Amino acid sequence: MVQKFGVDDVRGVIAVAPTPALPGAAELTARDTVDLDESDRMIRALVADGVDGIITNGTLGEMATLTLDEWQAFTACVADAVSDTSSDLPLFVGATTPNTRETIDRIRFLRDLGVRGVILGRPMWSALGADALLAFYRDVANLFPDMAIVLYDNPEAFKGPIPSAVYAELAKVPQIIGAKYIAITPKFTADVAAVGGRLRLLPLESDWLAAHTLHPETSLGCWSSSALCGPQPVLALRDAIRSGDVEAARHLTHRIEWTYEPFLARTNFGEFSKYNISLEKLRFDEAGYVTAGPVRPPYHVVPEAYAEGARENGRRWRRLVGEVRDSDS
Amino acid sequence: MVQKFGVDDVRGVIAVAPTPALPGAAELTARDTVDLDESDRMIRALVADGVDGIITNGTLGEMATLTLDEWQAFTACVADAVSDTSSDLPLFVGATTPNTRETIDRIRFLRDLGVRGVILGRPMWSALGADALLAFYRDVANLFPDMAIVLYDNPEAFKGPIPSAVYAELAKVPQIIGAKYIAITPKFTADVAAVGGRLRLLPLESDWLAAHTLHPETSLGCWSSSALCGPQPVLALRDAIRSGDVEAARHLTHRIEWTYEPFLARTNFGEFSKYNISLEKLRFDEAGYVTAGPVRPPYHVVPEAYAEGARENGRRWRRLVGEVRDSDS
Amino acid sequence: MVQKFGVDDVRGVIAVAPTPALPGAAELTARDTVDLDESDRMIRALVADGVDGIITNGTLGEMATLTLDEWQAFTACVADAVSDTSSDLPLFVGATTPNTRETIDRIRFLRDLGVRGVILGRPMWSALGADALLAFYRDVANLFPDMAIVLYDNPEAFKGPIPSAVYAELAKVPQIIGAKYIAITPKFTADVAAVGGRLRLLPLESDWLAAHTLHPETSLGCWSSSALCGPQPVLALRDAIRSGDVEAARHLTHRIEWTYEPFLARTNFGEFSKYNISLEKLRFDEAGYVTAGPVRPPYHVVPEAYAEGARENGRRWRRLVGEVRDSDS
Amino acid sequence: MVQKFGVDDVRGVIAVAPTPALPGAAELTARDTVDLDESDRMIRALVADGVDGIITNGTLGEMATLTLDEWQAFTACVADAVSDTSSDLPLFVGATTPNTRETIDRIRFLRDLGVRGVILGRPMWSALGADALLAFYRDVANLFPDMAIVLYDNPEAFKGPIPSAVYAELAKVPQIIGAKYIAITPKFTADVAAVGGRLRLLPLESDWLAAHTLHPETSLGCWSSSALCGPQPVLALRDAIRSGDVEAARHLTHRIEWTYEPFLARTNFGEFSKYNISLEKLRFDEAGYVTAGPVRPPYHVVPEAYAEGARENGRRWRRLVGEVRDSDS
Repeated sequence: MVQKFGVDDVRGVIAVAPTPALPGAAELTARDTVDLDESDRMIRALVADGVDGIITNGTLGEMATLTLDEWQAFTACVADAVSDTSSDLPLFVGATTPNTRETIDRIRFLRDLGVRGVILGRPMWSALGADALLAFYRDVANLFPDMAIVLYDNPEAFKGPIPSAVYAELAKVPQIIGAKYIAITPKFTADVAAVGGRLRLLPLESDWLAAHTLHPETSLGCWSSSALCGPQPVLALRDAIRSGDVEAARHLTHRIEWTYEPFLARTNFGEFSKYNISLEKLRFDEAGYVTAGPVRPPYHVVPEAYAEGARENGRRWRRLVGEVRDSDS
Repeated sequence: MVQKFGVDDVRGVIAVAPTPALPGAAELTARDTVDLDESDRMIRALVADGVDGIITNGTLGEMATLTLDEWQAFTACVADAVSDTSSDLPLFVGATTPNTRETIDRIRFLRDLGVRGVILGRPMWSALGADALLAFYRDVANLFPDMAIVLYDNPEAFKGPIPSAVYAELAKVPQIIGAKYIAITPKFTADVAAVGGRLRLLPLESDWLAAHTLHPETSLGCWSSSALCGPQPVLALRDAIRSGDVEAARHLTHRIEWTYEPFLARTNFGEFSKYNISLEKLRFDEAGYVTAGPVRPPYHVVPEAYAEGARENGRRWRRLVGEVRDSDS
Repeated sequence: MVQKFGVDDVRGVIAVAPTPALPGAAELTARDTVDLDESDRMIRALVADGVDGIITNGTLGEMATLTLDEWQAFTACVADAVSDTSSDLPLFVGATTPNTRETIDRIRFLRDLGVRGVILGRPMWSALGADALLAFYRDVANLFPDMAIVLYDNPEAFKGPIPSAVYAELAKVPQIIGAKYIAITPKFTADVAAVGGRLRLLPLESDWLAAHTLHPETSLGCWSSSALCGPQPVLALRDAIRSGDVEAARHLTHRIEWTYEPFLARTNFGEFSKYNISLEKLRFDEAGYVTAGPVRPPYHVVPEAYAEGARENGRRWRRLVGEVRDSDS
Repeated sequence: MVQKFGVDDVRGVIAVAPTPALPGAAELTARDTVDLDESDRMIRALVADGVDGIITNGTLGEMATLTLDEWQAFTACVADAVSDTSSDLPLFVGATTPNTRETIDRIRFLRDLGVRGVILGRPMWSALGADALLAFYRDVANLFPDMAIVLYDNPEAFKGPIPSAVYAELAKVPQIIGAKYIAITPKFTADVAAVGGRLRLLPLESDWLAAHTLHPETSLGCWSSSALCGPQPVLALRDAIRSGDVEAARHLTHRIEWTYEPFLARTNFGEFSKYNISLEKLRFDEAGYVTAGPVRPPYHVVPEAYAEGARENGRRWRRLVGEVRDSDS
């Protein structure tokens, strides 16, 4: 079997989706908590609305807190929905676990389902040194020559960024085609130089215009969890960037930043990292595009002040969706 | 069933044991990697030599990298060896996983085996806020009224210390009887005050004398992974502290510090945290008390300069074992 | 007297200049170490070449290590050279000291010289809380109604960034017209929103294009110490941004980034912060636009590997100056 | 001239004194703010009460915020009071400034006054790398063969601890006889080993018993700013440690810890570092042993909640002084 997805498939709007939960999913004794109907509906809606790719089971996708059975059920559901609606849509399913062997088992399961893309963070109980980090990704890639890997570069979750020198080495591995990148800083420029176009660094949607201005040949896509509040604003941003309409892209970027103003991810990222799952699911529920439902333990606890900021973010995003629709018509 | 172990059982030398691995255990495709014969022998040796308690499956015990089958097999083996040799020895088996529900399943397995003690870190993909951290431990304790819990307070692994205010609350939970504590700093004093004797803070063996000097009524035990290089020096330290022989205790503490001089845990703790499993198993193998064997991926990669420091630590400890034996005779 | 410079004067290329030193300036017993001839020549060259403003006596300008006499002599020389050549050029002289009262004395000296702009970091022996930081800048501004203040926002030097909420308050003070900003991160966007156009945030020249793309109305200038390797590339970047020639601006930005590749400020900013003065002066000397000379103690010590990276940065910049000249002709 | 103080003079209770301020000293226009009468009285009281040494002009001694004139006046006053009352008392005056040359001038002034001890932190605008840090202390020591130097090792103020390897080198310099050490951690043990008895590491008074238990030959003194709330409890601790009365020493240590309970230095050291001067002076004023007076700007701003904790610390200390007196009689 050959690799299905390459670096050129990491483009446009890659939506980062939650794992919808049934009522009661926050209970300690709950089992089979995935809302499979809503999961199916969510994927079909994203495809119908025109996103260019989907990531599941990262941090907000509750990779850490799903049981194996639940992850398998959700993954099968998502894979079905995608293959039903779009044979070519890049789907990157999370397979991050506390160790290499369990991650390999997860990827094998995905491959058997027909999934050909994975998003992969590294084991994080102990931080991995640069040498071990490089070995981890290489080892996994070698075992799955036909599986496309998007790096999950989240310094809070995985105890440090992927060093530029490691990016340079990972870019040589054909299966490694992209990275979900955290923020635009001087290191971003160094990493763009390090990967030399062989691996696509995906910024957050609100950073995309700045990244594209500097790197128009390679900065061809973004990731967005806000897209699960409704993908239209991000799709409009994509179209503006693609057509060279900088003024429209700038306006959309500013409006997206406006939705983030009350969101903890903007005002205090370190603190946000402790409550990210709850805050993401709360804003999704408030925006109404997907019913994300309860949060699995232990991440179901969240201070109300933070929760309200997330809900306001969801309300603002819903208003922004309206603005984008109005300007289209 | 009533709780078997209480705060008074957290005393003396609590040895922190590895999970011995068969040759080839560092391979990605390896399965059933636990060296059960050596595991059985190790536990019996510790009991025979007189340690006062055993902790398994923390960081160096490879909790993060054992498969579920392996953890079950090792745990059953350890439980058998303990119950065979000492019906009362406090055994605290690790049950830390990425989420609450899986941890509950692990503890249920332990209880069914007859194990009555657990050492428990918290989920660490996302750091837990103080409220969520407290809820996590309380939730677990509530489900297992007969299971004694030792907190695993490792700020590097779990993304922050247990705050003093949380210690104060956790000390009110009868099942929570101790904490494996990382280092003696001003916060240690605050935490001793916070728990008010209801929960025993266990320092590292080389900090025990200082802690005992300040808190003779409550500082009645220590943890020691060095004990797996041979428990005799730590047992001699215990006897010196118990008998009030400060000069002997001080001498042993200084000799133990001498063994640590080349060890990365002393010279650079942040860097040590990336390679702790490999470095612990290497020094165990060099000291010769237990054959710890290979390290499971991805933590099997270690720079040689660090490895040599660990081996030298093991050699020094072996020499210290000889000194202690000589002075006994 | 009324305020001479306002927010609209913080525009274009603001060059960050060193304090040229005579041979022997690294000696402990040296006094009167400023090379006043070279200082005069440097300022006249910058003005003649067309920079839009000048900053002196920040970190690389050795504010911390000049004696009071030297600072006064250098400042008088710079003020003369500027007033001789351009009555309107915004000049911002550093007046950062360990305390408020000494800073006030410095600003009084500047005002008596006719200098009407100051760049001001905060006392840094103990970090200042947000309340104290706000009070510090307000107190100083109140005493000097006719003096324009540029904030020096260097989180490494002054132990933390200026919080967004403090920016919002400082923007209300008419004398505070700008900030030398460290890097483009999500906080930059928050701070742009916080100041509402009343205070100009100056990015580094290589971040200017990205900042300008997002904020074309307010991102009208940059700071550049590289300009002291020869200002032509930064001036060309300014002209490209002003004329809307994004392709040219992007090309220049990429070439500037290329010069930074071997520079420690790019590869390890934390480490760079320990050796910044030496590394800046070394690259200036290598590029040849100004003879910066020796570094005053204790910052004269620098590892050779770092030094060579700085020199290579200087050589690359000199080559870039040539490229810009060639493309002009 | 030969060195007057050696390592054996760094013993007992070294009191860390403030610089008493006259009313109005927090004003920006204030000059000559030192309360010289109170300064003289304070020094004479400390000597009369039996402290074994005095440190002035560190962080809480407002080294950063005194004008040169004020520092000279205070220092002359202190030197007079000491020489008047005790020709042999080790006095270590602060001479930390932003650069080497100004520090040299300060030490020269001290020497001319007859002062033979200095406490010296390093320049902190830019952090000093290990090589530069070593060179700084060596350079200063070489210029003053007769001046005894106590290192001021405050990682918050000076941007990092003194590395163990640097301690090993500094211990070889005869003039460097001690260090004001921040806290008892594993690095303390490494540093004790590194200096080999040639340089005395002074712990805080509440850490002294633990340090002395481990290192009875070398841990012969402590520093204490609490002594300026009344030195009696620390002197009683000294006597208990010297006489081998561990139970009394432990009791006093616990009572001292009790006074610290409401103090920000205990509950949040990072936050304390922003307000340390105000909080120290507030507790001194509350305890009543010295009238420390207002705080010089910009460090005069302090949140009331923190201030109240400091006052309560002062009240508790005063009560402890009473307890010690009662038990003496």
